[in-house]
Amino acid sequence: MIQEATINTVRALLEARREGHSLEGAFYTDAALFDLDIEAVFSNEWLFACNVAEIPRAGDYVTLRIGATSVVVVRGEDGGVAAFFNTCRHRGSVLCTEAHGHVKKFVCPYHQWVYDLDGSLRHARQMPDRFDRSAHGLGRVPVETLCGMVYLCLGETPPDFSRFKAAVSPYIAPHRPERTRVAWSETIVEEANWKLVIENNRECYHCAGSHPELLETLVEFALPDDPRGTQDFQALMSEKTARWEALDLPHLPASGGTEFRCIRLPLRRGALSFTMDGRAACRKLLGEFREPDLGSVRMFRVPNNWNHFLADHILHFRVLPLAPNRTALTTTWLVHEDAVEGVDYDIETLTAVWRATNAQDAALVAHNQAGVSSRGYRPGTYAPAEFMLNHFTDWYAAKLRAYLDAYGDA
Amino acid sequence: MIQEATINTVRALLEARREGHSLEGAFYTDAALFDLDIEAVFSNEWLFACNVAEIPRAGDYVTLRIGATSVVVVRGEDGGVAAFFNTCRHRGSVLCTEAHGHVKKFVCPYHQWVYDLDGSLRHARQMPDRFDRSAHGLGRVPVETLCGMVYLCLGETPPDFSRFKAAVSPYIAPHRPERTRVAWSETIVEEANWKLVIENNRECYHCAGSHPELLETLVEFALPDDPRGTQDFQALMSEKTARWEALDLPHLPASGGTEFRCIRLPLRRGALSFTMDGRAACRKLLGEFREPDLGSVRMFRVPNNWNHFLADHILHFRVLPLAPNRTALTTTWLVHEDAVEGVDYDIETLTAVWRATNAQDAALVAHNQAGVSSRGYRPGTYAPAEFMLNHFTDWYAAKLRAYLDAYGDA
Amino acid sequence: MIQEATINTVRALLEARREGHSLEGAFYTDAALFDLDIEAVFSNEWLFACNVAEIPRAGDYVTLRIGATSVVVVRGEDGGVAAFFNTCRHRGSVLCTEAHGHVKKFVCPYHQWVYDLDGSLRHARQMPDRFDRSAHGLGRVPVETLCGMVYLCLGETPPDFSRFKAAVSPYIAPHRPERTRVAWSETIVEEANWKLVIENNRECYHCAGSHPELLETLVEFALPDDPRGTQDFQALMSEKTARWEALDLPHLPASGGTEFRCIRLPLRRGALSFTMDGRAACRKLLGEFREPDLGSVRMFRVPNNWNHFLADHILHFRVLPLAPNRTALTTTWLVHEDAVEGVDYDIETLTAVWRATNAQDAALVAHNQAGVSSRGYRPGTYAPAEFMLNHFTDWYAAKLRAYLDAYGDA
Repeated sequence: MIQEATINTVRALLEARREGHSLEGAFYTDAALFDLDIEAVFSNEWLFACNVAEIPRAGDYVTLRIGATSVVVVRGEDGGVAAFFNTCRHRGSVLCTEAHGHVKKFVCPYHQWVYDLDGSLRHARQMPDRFDRSAHGLGRVPVETLCGMVYLCLGETPPDFSRFKAAVSPYIAPHRPERTRVAWSETIVEEANWKLVIENNRECYHCAGSHPELLETLVEFALPDDPRGTQDFQALMSEKTARWEALDLPHLPASGGTEFRCIRLPLRRGALSFTMDGRAACRKLLGEFREPDLGSVRMFRVPNNWNHFLADHILHFRVLPLAPNRTALTTTWLVHEDAVEGVDYDIETLTAVWRATNAQDAALVAHNQAGVSSRGYRPGTYAPAEFMLNHFTDWYAAKLRAYLDAYGDA
Repeated sequence: MIQEATINTVRALLEARREGHSLEGAFYTDAALFDLDIEAVFSNEWLFACNVAEIPRAGDYVTLRIGATSVVVVRGEDGGVAAFFNTCRHRGSVLCTEAHGHVKKFVCPYHQWVYDLDGSLRHARQMPDRFDRSAHGLGRVPVETLCGMVYLCLGETPPDFSRFKAAVSPYIAPHRPERTRVAWSETIVEEANWKLVIENNRECYHCAGSHPELLETLVEFALPDDPRGTQDFQALMSEKTARWEALDLPHLPASGGTEFRCIRLPLRRGALSFTMDGRAACRKLLGEFREPDLGSVRMFRVPNNWNHFLADHILHFRVLPLAPNRTALTTTWLVHEDAVEGVDYDIETLTAVWRATNAQDAALVAHNQAGVSSRGYRPGTYAPAEFMLNHFTDWYAAKLRAYLDAYGDA
Repeated sequence: MIQEATINTVRALLEARREGHSLEGAFYTDAALFDLDIEAVFSNEWLFACNVAEIPRAGDYVTLRIGATSVVVVRGEDGGVAAFFNTCRHRGSVLCTEAHGHVKKFVCPYHQWVYDLDGSLRHARQMPDRFDRSAHGLGRVPVETLCGMVYLCLGETPPDFSRFKAAVSPYIAPHRPERTRVAWSETIVEEANWKLVIENNRECYHCAGSHPELLETLVEFALPDDPRGTQDFQALMSEKTARWEALDLPHLPASGGTEFRCIRLPLRRGALSFTMDGRAACRKLLGEFREPDLGSVRMFRVPNNWNHFLADHILHFRVLPLAPNRTALTTTWLVHEDAVEGVDYDIETLTAVWRATNAQDAALVAHNQAGVSSRGYRPGTYAPAEFMLNHFTDWYAAKLRAYLDAYGDA
């Protein structure tokens, strides 16, 4: 329940906001503003949930928790993907108690009410004849899929998804995310507000000081014409983009505004994949790829997802807020669906770089959280290399304003 | 301190409440509404505390915590039972720091102020002559006893206890709860709101799916004329009630309204006690009983207690709320005061069924709590077998309304 | 953010306050009132931070956390001591991530912005030419030193320090706190409100019941003319004060009002230091002292510090509030800067008495916290021996009133 006092506080904070600066401390630390984020942002946007590769068969499911709300994403009998509030319509028990699993039907563990995979209530034992089962199906959560990536929206009027889908599909479709298998997935809890986790992801200004493993293969520049780009980088860009065009692989920055980003950029010269030595992580390449050096498609969408699509594997990152100062980050490594562990890839080689990078970022954002909690913190100026943080905070402020305006009308 | 905003929120939620349905999610999850429960319900009702068998000698005490308030229940010099706020009148330290123990006087651990067992301040060292010791006795907490069961009320104007006492005494007196000893007692913390713990106890609709050990001996039906009752159950009822009447043991449902319940029901045919194999748990029967198969008296009283009284042992269950999503459940097994462990009973046999059942219920209510916290939760329809939940939520809503009305007057 | 509702609640609680009594329970337990304490008291007073002996060389630093605010205290190039908000002016990361350490410059771990030890921004890589480094120095926190003891104030208009400094310097200067080394330091977390920790320190009424080790050497009386003082104590006072006067060591109580206290009192006859057997803890005496029996200067200053200055060692106690019911207590034992561990002193002998005493007090204040949280708690009368608690609660109430008055004007 968002209080009137919170609304007024946020209005004042947004009035005082300076563009091009990090947010006022309360946005990163205050419990009431965290609840507002869950309402205004996380219950009102497309959230990345999982890849269909995680639920290949009918009845396979994953659950995820957004704030206090558990959602189950399930592969249906028809092969499609659906999502439901993971809450029984009888007395509200969660239906699926595991992070992922397989069911024939959803059977509530409390009183064994049975729901079909399409959410309809099949059986409610001992309920009287007058009880209308058709009015007691599971609450449906809208989903959209994008080359196998599943997004969901908790709100009743989801924002447009089509512009994003149309813009980024050409980049990622050749990597065939929907034809992959999960090689490894892990969740870490970072001691920071979700927005600091996102801000950390949106710039590589910090890479030189913290990510030696990653910089073996990743170029720090976020744009083809990055003014920091060296002559060597320009040469590399020219060479690679010519090759990508020959292969019909789009690479120029998509027009995502403040909502999303999609671009293909090269890895460092000689590197094929995000491995410690730059060699490929998986012998079996994705999709129909014949050559291992395709750089990486870097894609993100606010508020909770970023990805890398390489020739040999795909990385999904999913951010879920737990508390004002705690955020769950799930990283999933995907390889070709026919790749065989121990033959085509091994998990240590595949995951070493980003596991190290995630741990480094976890420490950075925890220090960031500790510092912005201070009464001595003042919003600071973003560096030119942090231009994507301007996009993020502008988008965030607009999202809150839209919520406040609607709140005023309600 | 209950805020005006909370009061208004609760008024609106009670307005919107649909009878015969589980409560709105906020009642199970909101911190401010939890504080209201402590005020409006737990500080204003008779709460089960313990059995006098736990404090047999003068100076024996038990402490319990209701919300942030610690109370000490003590056996007095006169053999009576009294209760006091477990807080020194000097600077407020707790007096008794253990869950149970024995004292000659209450001596504050901080500055050694000394109180008699009747709560009067006996000695306050170094205090000046003008200090009025007689005005600084311990704060007295009203108690009532019922066949040895001790109830207390934190509020200054306790509700009536006599109707309850008169109604249920004839059922439980023959079991002589006051002539028992504690064979075993344990406290588990369930990850759910106290009302979900109570709701879980008020129906056996969930038993078939979760309690195989319990259903070896317990019949699922809550009333003699349960419409689900089989012909065999009817035959069993007729046979048993005839015998109970011959023994002068009352068995028909007491008229407890929404406040309490008392009834004698048979165990499953052939079962004598809540054991894994249905055999008696204690060779020495309670009171003057000569025969081991007397079914069980099932008794509960809102808000925090339920019990079973069998021929060979008694079970007390005590519920104390810790947080919106955490509740302490204490289960106590009592046998005849002269029963000898290792000779008449062993603890494993005595406790196995309900320890298993408690653990199963703890999982169920934790799943329930997780689900009602969701924005997708909607209050659901109680099943016919859940008729006692109607009583409970009606009683709860009335209790809150009475508090809100008094708040308006204050 | 302090809410209007909190302000009104506190006004009413202060109206109802009875002098000479412990505070209303809410002051010790309520989360909103704890936040108010951080604002009205801990962000608006001189707080003891450390001793310069902890940061002997340029670039040595200690960090401490007041509420959510981390501060770094550093020895500058010029040998002076300065303090800064430990928060980078770029995106707010903490700069110094350890409790103490050494740096040449402050380098932010996030993007490597570099600050000189005087807080000025030396280097901010990749920032554009128009970026004004001179406007982005670290936020300076005022400090005052008193014979090497460092106090800081988070507020912009610190209260007067000079009266305190002038009053107590003559007592402690001969002990030369600034010419010491840290023999041992440790922090324990006590499960009580910071005010209960302070109240516990302000009286020795509880000593007889809880501190057998301490009472081997400490006299319980807080004043030369304590009415409880025995004839033997009077004789001891006469004898010792004559000697102190011969040595030109001040001993009469300083006029600190409710803010501070400073007095020299004897140890028990025959005792030289706070050790288990009363013998000296360090062979090398402090400063220019030639004789080991100088009693102890007892000094405290609200809100967070008390000290003992003996002939052979010094004790600093520092209190930092963590939560309504959690407080960090740091105890530091200092000896002459030339004293050698294993030769002049050993840590076990030096620290045994106060480590035992601290542990005993931690239990006492935890019991106190548990008791004042009860709805049965009523503010109690302070005993005559608790006269310094009158000073403390009067000072605290005045501090809050001043904040409320200024709040009304704002």
